Amino acid sequence: MKADSPLSRVAVVLSRTSHPGNIGAAARAMKTMGLADLVLVAPRHFPHPEAVALAAGAADVLERARVVPTLAEALADRTLAVGFSARGRDLSHPAREWRAAAPEAIAATADGPVALVFGNETSGLSNDELLACQRHACIPANPDYPSLNLAAAVQVACYELAAAASAFRAPARPPRSPATGADLEALHARLNALLVASGFLDPREPGRLDERMRRLAARLDLEAHEVAILHGMLDSLAPRRK
Amino acid sequence: MKADSPLSRVAVVLSRTSHPGNIGAAARAMKTMGLADLVLVAPRHFPHPEAVALAAGAADVLERARVVPTLAEALADRTLAVGFSARGRDLSHPAREWRAAAPEAIAATADGPVALVFGNETSGLSNDELLACQRHACIPANPDYPSLNLAAAVQVACYELAAAASAFRAPARPPRSPATGADLEALHARLNALLVASGFLDPREPGRLDERMRRLAARLDLEAHEVAILHGMLDSLAPRRK
Repeated sequence: MKADSPLSRVAVVLSRTSHPGNIGAAARAMKTMGLADLVLVAPRHFPHPEAVALAAGAADVLERARVVPTLAEALADRTLAVGFSARGRDLSHPAREWRAAAPEAIAATADGPVALVFGNETSGLSNDELLACQRHACIPANPDYPSLNLAAAVQVACYELAAAASAFRAPARPPRSPATGADLEALHARLNALLVASGFLDPREPGRLDERMRRLAARLDLEAHEVAILHGMLDSLAPRRK
Repeated sequence: MKADSPLSRVAVVLSRTSHPGNIGAAARAMKTMGLADLVLVAPRHFPHPEAVALAAGAADVLERARVVPTLAEALADRTLAVGFSARGRDLSHPAREWRAAAPEAIAATADGPVALVFGNETSGLSNDELLACQRHACIPANPDYPSLNLAAAVQVACYELAAAASAFRAPARPPRSPATGADLEALHARLNALLVASGFLDPREPGRLDERMRRLAARLDLEAHEVAILHGMLDSLAPRRK
């Protein structure tokens, strides 16, 4: 992989992986497609000899993998996170086919680092994990058996990304300064605190308000300066101290 | 998979596979993409519990797999055999990128049954095996490490074939009830009034705030029910009358 390739700005994030062999196989899948940056969120077993065995010639990817306790930490520096879900037809989390969406992810590397996020082998990404991602993607599969192995899903996702990268010519487009994951978390925290203070949100019965607000924000592709404006706006609305 | 799908006329042929786990993982990869016909040429170990374990929900593909002693026998009834090779640039066996060649393989199913042929994990397809195939295909990969796991290569190959077959419908899109222009005007009017009251917006020097907020809202494609939530939220933030 060349250092200036868009692929060098894309991390694969595996959340709560149960089987260390899948981590190794995913590292191998990544390297065959030119990706090198692996982030592991609270893996059940890592490091582990089985991960090394299945990584084969991609031991370097494993060695450089970062282990973090939360998905929020994995995404803190990312300006785009794409969550992969087999639930392509789930109405609450509509996902685009990855083949159609991959070119946009490549284009987004011009603005900042990108993450492809994969959930646990059995349960996939949770609702909260999906809400931490600005985009949702699916790999079209047999409706009678859509259950790709985790490393197989990583292989297909990276294959499509590499295909999109090879086809990619940076278009003349105004540069963006997208908000980071940390920016967005801070914004949601402040909004929630304000709405609790205003009485709009009952913290004992929060319902789905935070989820709805996160979906809105994900659709916005907020710029860093827009987040600053919104912070100032929320500040002005906070109840005055007596 | 529907019986009349082109995919029902395509077999995956694995030649001289060393590791039974790879046979099971390949069966799973096939089934997730709607393929069901697996042929094993002189596998080192089969049947084997490890194959069953890695097949997961594709045990039926394993059970129906045919085991034959030679590649010639596996291809005897096929009218097209595509041999997969990592040696894409090998001059003696030029291979086309599979993404470009897969639609032709699908079209060929109208004329007779088709085979996708994969070689041994370590050595790939031999020259003789490649010569038994009418077409050679490659999966583009990192030139520094093009070594896809066997089941991973089967996954990508079947994924491309399924895409070519257009076997899958685009994910269903949730029904929308978009906000009207009047809804949005009312929302902006209320937000502006609130920000004037909070002191954030000076009505004598409004600057570009309204414009920025309108741009954000335009990007949101707000639903009517989302506008209702935002109205409720703004109501809760309005300064209380004494």
